[in-house]
Amino acid sequence: MENSNSSIEGNNLRVRKLELSDKSKGFLELLRQLTVCDSVSDKEFEDRFKEISMYGDDHVICVIEDEISGKIIASGSVFIEKKFIRKCGKVAHIEDVVVDAGSRGTQLGKKIVGFLADHARSMGCYKVILDCSDENKVFYEKCGFKKKEIQMVKYFV
Amino acid sequence: MENSNSSIEGNNLRVRKLELSDKSKGFLELLRQLTVCDSVSDKEFEDRFKEISMYGDDHVICVIEDEISGKIIASGSVFIEKKFIRKCGKVAHIEDVVVDAGSRGTQLGKKIVGFLADHARSMGCYKVILDCSDENKVFYEKCGFKKKEIQMVKYFV
Repeated sequence: MENSNSSIEGNNLRVRKLELSDKSKGFLELLRQLTVCDSVSDKEFEDRFKEISMYGDDHVICVIEDEISGKIIASGSVFIEKKFIRKCGKVAHIEDVVVDAGSRGTQLGKKIVGFLADHARSMGCYKVILDCSDENKVFYEKCGFKKKEIQMVKYFV
Repeated sequence: MENSNSSIEGNNLRVRKLELSDKSKGFLELLRQLTVCDSVSDKEFEDRFKEISMYGDDHVICVIEDEISGKIIASGSVFIEKKFIRKCGKVAHIEDVVVDAGSRGTQLGKKIVGFLADHARSMGCYKVILDCSDENKVFYEKCGFKKKEIQMVKYFV
């Protein structure tokens, strides 16, 4: 993939896939800026990391590491759904896009979404979709997305 | 799962998981009522069936078969996304819910969504989500869902 594991020119930021060691680089603290993200043990983290890794290119988590601070400052995930419609087509789902509060307004969100969308395209998906709040609509429009449907949810807990 | 492979009382409808032989029972013709669903060869269908089956309980397609006509008259799918947020929580995504035009208004859609949501709950998901058009909002509200976000899409083809 063209932008896999690349540096952002002119600074010390590296765009790459999630690594197991990112738990100690503030990955969960970053996710906590997005939603509830309780602490988990190293074992729980590793187990989940391995479960996701088993899907290979069908479930990829992208992060941006600030190589000076050693912190993960942006992240997002994409997984590939296999369908029967559209001649056994594939659809990519983007989830959990977050940029550290101290780094917002620096195009990192766009970089994350670009990485994930490029991955989706390289996997042969006919489209990539995501759900967001009304207030984030403009951001995703700048990333080339258009509003289509509405999201419905049912909570179990 | 409680409602796995069950008959609907008082009629000849069977709710069950997709089987390979459903290609010859009108499964693709049913999906065509939902969206573009070109014909595929038996080999293509089998390959995709096997790919999805590899995910086991993490990707389930539910169908309703009319045992008199031998036709598939309703379908829907659900897949389980593994996350790090919410203490390494899991979210279920419902997709491609469709009921044959000749069988609408007979609660089959509700039966499909119920099957998929029950599966999501049994898999330990903290929520189940789906995207739908504004006109289908009321149907999903009757299934216990609430509107939350908006869906954004980017097409590659």
